Amino acid sequence: MLTSPTILDAADPLARFQADFVRSDPDLIYLDGNSLGRLPRATADRVATAITEEWGRGLIRSWSHWIDLAREIGDRIGAGVVSARPGEVLVGDSTTVNLYKLAAAALDARPDRRVIVLDDDNFPTDLYVLQGLAAARNLELRVLHTDIDAGIDVDALRAALDDDVALLCLSHVAYRSGALADMSTITEAAHAVGALVLWDLSHAAGSVPVPLTESGADLAVGCTYKYLNGGPGAPAFLYVRRELQATLRQPIWGWFGQQDQFAMGSTYQPVAGIERFAVGTPPVLGLYAVEEGIRPVVEAGIDAIRAKGVALTSYAVDLSDAWLTPLGFRLASPRDAARRGGHVSLYHPDGWRICQALIARDVVPDYRTPDRLRLGFSPLTTSFEDVWTGLSRLRDLVAAEEHLTFDATPGRVT
Amino acid sequence: MLTSPTILDAADPLARFQADFVRSDPDLIYLDGNSLGRLPRATADRVATAITEEWGRGLIRSWSHWIDLAREIGDRIGAGVVSARPGEVLVGDSTTVNLYKLAAAALDARPDRRVIVLDDDNFPTDLYVLQGLAAARNLELRVLHTDIDAGIDVDALRAALDDDVALLCLSHVAYRSGALADMSTITEAAHAVGALVLWDLSHAAGSVPVPLTESGADLAVGCTYKYLNGGPGAPAFLYVRRELQATLRQPIWGWFGQQDQFAMGSTYQPVAGIERFAVGTPPVLGLYAVEEGIRPVVEAGIDAIRAKGVALTSYAVDLSDAWLTPLGFRLASPRDAARRGGHVSLYHPDGWRICQALIARDVVPDYRTPDRLRLGFSPLTTSFEDVWTGLSRLRDLVAAEEHLTFDATPGRVT
Repeated sequence: MLTSPTILDAADPLARFQADFVRSDPDLIYLDGNSLGRLPRATADRVATAITEEWGRGLIRSWSHWIDLAREIGDRIGAGVVSARPGEVLVGDSTTVNLYKLAAAALDARPDRRVIVLDDDNFPTDLYVLQGLAAARNLELRVLHTDIDAGIDVDALRAALDDDVALLCLSHVAYRSGALADMSTITEAAHAVGALVLWDLSHAAGSVPVPLTESGADLAVGCTYKYLNGGPGAPAFLYVRRELQATLRQPIWGWFGQQDQFAMGSTYQPVAGIERFAVGTPPVLGLYAVEEGIRPVVEAGIDAIRAKGVALTSYAVDLSDAWLTPLGFRLASPRDAARRGGHVSLYHPDGWRICQALIARDVVPDYRTPDRLRLGFSPLTTSFEDVWTGLSRLRDLVAAEEHLTFDATPGRVT
Repeated sequence: MLTSPTILDAADPLARFQADFVRSDPDLIYLDGNSLGRLPRATADRVATAITEEWGRGLIRSWSHWIDLAREIGDRIGAGVVSARPGEVLVGDSTTVNLYKLAAAALDARPDRRVIVLDDDNFPTDLYVLQGLAAARNLELRVLHTDIDAGIDVDALRAALDDDVALLCLSHVAYRSGALADMSTITEAAHAVGALVLWDLSHAAGSVPVPLTESGADLAVGCTYKYLNGGPGAPAFLYVRRELQATLRQPIWGWFGQQDQFAMGSTYQPVAGIERFAVGTPPVLGLYAVEEGIRPVVEAGIDAIRAKGVALTSYAVDLSDAWLTPLGFRLASPRDAARRGGHVSLYHPDGWRICQALIARDVVPDYRTPDRLRLGFSPLTTSFEDVWTGLSRLRDLVAAEEHLTFDATPGRVT
């Protein structure tokens, strides 16, 4: 017996946050908040004020407002989104650039070790960055095979770790399956062999608790345009454990990491704190959008967000079992809610065409190869009604074979 | 006999462009458009539309608008701001990150050479990036001494070039003096020994013609928040000569440089074109601000901008000679207009206090160590009246010794 979404929405303690976000088209069911979060209502005004007042009126004098933004917003992420202490998180650059900086810094800190351990289910840009670093430094990439529906096999991972491993780099939440890695257990296993650990939090931050402090994680990077609602291409963040900061040096030496920056000294001498991982001029407009994007996340609290995320994904799994399995779908995510993050994937051999047909029915999912519909449930903006309506439209279109009229060749993700 | 600014403004063919920019405070004389360009009137609406319509309403579906923006805006810079061919310019990342990518790519392309040539008057972040690359690769940094008021000594530079030089990296316009380097002569000298050349265009782009194509320059990076009016921390651009693109590979392997990106292949295989120098998700809001920032530059035309830049700086030099030299100032820029870009610096032993006093008089200059007031004249937004008024306030405050009441210890640039 499936619960009515009306009942679930009525009991949802986070329901009020939906009003904090723009919903231009009430008929559109948006199940891709894990790819691009919805627009917070406050963002347009905040960015407009920054443009008109701070830039337009204040001009260069507004640098007094801007100079510390990257660290201040980082601290808010550390306090309310992930678990980190003040001075451990910095916003700026892209996730990929941050991953490069921190991975390179970690490898420099373990110069006698020759191995990077990763898994083949990590996000492609992570794979590429590590391939580039391994090629440049002639290191071994030890690639663990991960079941793309089930997530990391911790026993196999342990077996891949030895005292030649400099760096372990994994995603906290897998980008396809949503599988949630056990950050504490895995970090401990890496530390047992003396390796550093770099976590990609892109699909985790704002969706699940991220125990950076508690797990002893060394390094992390994350995206702000997914569950953190920072907007398209919003600046990413990085985390470096306080105790490691002075011992690590990232490879892109830039003036925003320099001591007494505006003395314009001729020799690079990085500051002691988290800003040594900064590079160039911070993207001010993007930073303000991030500030507004994280505000409702911090206000709601990550534990409440996680609870709703579990409820949303569990509801989707129940509906899928009832409605979609008979139509040839298979759950491509962990069935145990404790082992998955805020999204679930559904495998169907005709996934690409179904994705296109679903968009034509005003439901926006994401598509991930091979043949997976990825359904992202952003707890602050997705209602149980959205889940019900989205999956019922999916059921109806496949039952009616509407997808057979669409091109079967996978193209650009829309 | 000093010409009246009224006469000069009346004859200024670019005067109409001042109306395209916000001037909130008519009494403020802004002589720092070379540090942060004024706000174009169109920018706030363009960014607001991107936020509200493309992000808010279109959500993830708007990637069809966003996916090629970095190259499209790059092409506009190549067509109307610097001299480059389609597919040679890309917008994204910070100037410093771009400098790192291109310098590393150049060094990889000359693996048997051990020397990077630079000059000690290059912008600090350039020095730092090259120091970092030299340290990581155990290369020699051959640092040419440049007179900070006069610019690069081409004969001394030639003497520093030999067949062990992999890369020459210089600024087209010096950040303090405004000295304009001879891009063609210097590029030719570097090519004669088989070195690659990387130009920092940050203080040149939008102010002087940048003959990348004509000079045969290999690589360049530039800033968009100065004369290109892109706003605080706006994404930078990079240039890679078409013939070199396929042979160069930058070190930060990311998914926005990957062939068939959304196939999410497991092995990095960069695209053939300029986007192989892309890394992560492009900063969409920042890109739109850049698009609006360059629009009036392209419309005015760089030759007209250059002509007015020469007129503005020459006028400032004339006023300074008449009014400021008797008060202890000295021109810290080339006196020959053909040898300087869009800004001039004035040395005074009490420069820092004078800078503070000038700001208190509603004139915003920039301060650069040691003891230099840097006066940036952005041809699209600065009138001859601005130059006259700004320098007369400077004259009056020094004559009245108002600056003696300010703190003499240089601090943060305001």
